Amino acid sequence: MKKNINIALVGLGQIGIYLYNEIYIKKSEIEKKTGKKIKIVAISAKNKNKKRKFKINKNIFFSNPFNIFKEKKIDILIESIGLSDGISKKIIETALRNKIHVITPNKALISKHGDKLSQLAEINRVNLEFEASVAGGIPIIRTIKESFATNKITKIYGILNGTCNYIMTEMERTKDSFRNVLKKAQNLGYAELSNPKLDLNGYDALAKIKILSSLAFNKKISKSKCLMEGIENIDYADIKIADQLNFRIKLLGITEIIDNKIFERVHPCLVKKDSYIGNVNGVMNAVILNGTPIGESVLQGEGAGPGPTSSALMSDLLSILRGNIKYPFGISQKKRIKPKVFNKDLSSNSLYFRLEVKDKPGVLSSITKLFANYKISIQRLIQIPDNKKKTASIIIITHEANEANSLKCLSIFKKNKDVIKTPVLIRLFD
Amino acid sequence: MKKNINIALVGLGQIGIYLYNEIYIKKSEIEKKTGKKIKIVAISAKNKNKKRKFKINKNIFFSNPFNIFKEKKIDILIESIGLSDGISKKIIETALRNKIHVITPNKALISKHGDKLSQLAEINRVNLEFEASVAGGIPIIRTIKESFATNKITKIYGILNGTCNYIMTEMERTKDSFRNVLKKAQNLGYAELSNPKLDLNGYDALAKIKILSSLAFNKKISKSKCLMEGIENIDYADIKIADQLNFRIKLLGITEIIDNKIFERVHPCLVKKDSYIGNVNGVMNAVILNGTPIGESVLQGEGAGPGPTSSALMSDLLSILRGNIKYPFGISQKKRIKPKVFNKDLSSNSLYFRLEVKDKPGVLSSITKLFANYKISIQRLIQIPDNKKKTASIIIITHEANEANSLKCLSIFKKNKDVIKTPVLIRLFD
Repeated sequence: MKKNINIALVGLGQIGIYLYNEIYIKKSEIEKKTGKKIKIVAISAKNKNKKRKFKINKNIFFSNPFNIFKEKKIDILIESIGLSDGISKKIIETALRNKIHVITPNKALISKHGDKLSQLAEINRVNLEFEASVAGGIPIIRTIKESFATNKITKIYGILNGTCNYIMTEMERTKDSFRNVLKKAQNLGYAELSNPKLDLNGYDALAKIKILSSLAFNKKISKSKCLMEGIENIDYADIKIADQLNFRIKLLGITEIIDNKIFERVHPCLVKKDSYIGNVNGVMNAVILNGTPIGESVLQGEGAGPGPTSSALMSDLLSILRGNIKYPFGISQKKRIKPKVFNKDLSSNSLYFRLEVKDKPGVLSSITKLFANYKISIQRLIQIPDNKKKTASIIIITHEANEANSLKCLSIFKKNKDVIKTPVLIRLFD
Repeated sequence: MKKNINIALVGLGQIGIYLYNEIYIKKSEIEKKTGKKIKIVAISAKNKNKKRKFKINKNIFFSNPFNIFKEKKIDILIESIGLSDGISKKIIETALRNKIHVITPNKALISKHGDKLSQLAEINRVNLEFEASVAGGIPIIRTIKESFATNKITKIYGILNGTCNYIMTEMERTKDSFRNVLKKAQNLGYAELSNPKLDLNGYDALAKIKILSSLAFNKKISKSKCLMEGIENIDYADIKIADQLNFRIKLLGITEIIDNKIFERVHPCLVKKDSYIGNVNGVMNAVILNGTPIGESVLQGEGAGPGPTSSALMSDLLSILRGNIKYPFGISQKKRIKPKVFNKDLSSNSLYFRLEVKDKPGVLSSITKLFANYKISIQRLIQIPDNKKKTASIIIITHEANEANSLKCLSIFKKNKDVIKTPVLIRLFD
């Protein structure tokens, strides 16, 4: 690699502008560590004149980012727009075809198009780096690709969405409702104002799990429909009851190999209060990995925010400046095969059910009978009557139960006239 | 780098032989990930015919490892003898001078001679890799050098010695004495049979802290005499009292920047039971790092044992096979300056004292007077009399106190005739 390296930065939102400043102030340190002189020669964003945290050099601003390729000679392109398709995809493809290295924190795009982009990078003999796409402050991608490269990894799970973890933690701390805590998270910038849905419904965490899966198991990214549930239906009542039973509720992303098949999922879990994962609170992220011969390995750090994300992007930059061409997913695209997918209906979990019912004779027996019919055995049952309203909360913890049967029970409860609110099901996690 | 890579492995103890087997069984996976065909062409150890866990190829065995350089063309040498000097140092120097890449898990050697060896590697344009020298299962060295490369790191601390952590955990669990639990640790292979001293007295953890320090702060390895205390004098009584006060005792290694100076130390600490570090138990290791913009980052994993250590050695191997020549400590040797060292006498900590005293009038007042003279203010005092023996245990928790004054108090207590056992001082850690 030559000594002088030209960089283009496309997208100047919260992350892009922070990174722009970081690169600027750390130029000489980067030269010290890599021997390369770097220079940002082109920037682009939707709005040239928007008020930003750091001042930009308007002389190198391109309204149309595709003109950068025509007018400038660049070596590395950093994409920080964040769309799963559209301009994000097009600009990365164009860069790779022009033999320009690419760095992106875009998990939506990598989890959707990572295979094709990786192939494009390989054909053109350039790097495609995406450390910042999963848990910014945790160097999990480089750790899997490099540090644990010869381990046989069997399972990865963790807290991969800081927004959800903040909301769960704050609901417990303030005894407040989901709706109010979400508002607070939005005001603090932890949740998106316009559309927080992709964080809350598990989509964001699932995109990250798909990326980790493909890296850990050396497979293509799975395209199958996974078990994905968010935290939108969790009530403070559930957090309170979980607390009394010595649990906390966490949105976990999980991927593991069962019978040589990949089982990827994201859903809220009851985790023991005294477990490690039960004590990762607030906006923190954590990843736990099981492998041979490494054993159990834990990584924890801030999940998002411009600081940690920039740190990850800078590590990608240094990796390109220091290294040879590497396979984006650790092995050649030709050797990454399609994963076989485990049928989620065959999985089993202990379950927590919360049913709000009319307090009248026969209701409890009809519920327990239904469980018996579906071969779900009850470990613990708590009934909390509300004498005024003539209703009761019924909390049931089951032994391990088949997933398909559990969902059938849930759907029957939903239709039951004696069940007066949408029933809640949360899986237990060991 | 050419396609066929020849490896020599010197030292076939617990770790060497495990790695020998790993390389053998993972050859094709390594080729898949790096495009290189590797072959072990030479091995050496003290005893050719010793019974080992895996069979060795005696045709490639060298009784004198230095003959390997004469008779074989090798590209990578892996040193797994483990001495801080002597043959370990000589073989690594010879390899580097012959432009052969070196991999070693040898923390004693790297913490002592890392600077000179790093220079030798740089001059000869080969790699010197030592990921396995600190906390085998935790990829902390690569994480600092690569993932957090542009962060300003201000503090690293952690549990870096699995033997000590196992002993502390077992003493709490079984309510047994240090001596008995040490024996158990030796029987399980967690502590060395012949000479466990280097683990127990803090030397091992301090060697690791010195390596991490120099990487994190981009300085040469500090040669100064550091605050180093081990766990040999901790009694079950301390663990019990700590438990009652909601603490656990952990041997921590700590390095941080204070007033632009490095402050490195290893000593037992009282840590809160509900803190993260207070719950890293058994043989587990953990490293906590504070940096900007990364924030707080936590890595946890198995600290030692042939499995995790091999995993780290293999990551070094893949790094060499995949990459360019890299600076062993992340930056050029010329740019690593000598660290300025913080005067430990100026540091301050809250303290735990346990004094076994004669139960007679005036003893307590002479103790509290001494503290007052040294400007150490008492936060909490517990006196537990033993009426039969006419003795008492006095437990004192102080507010933040100056280190030099604290040690002076301790030495005066040691000479006091009313203090009937060696007094115990443990620093509190926030």
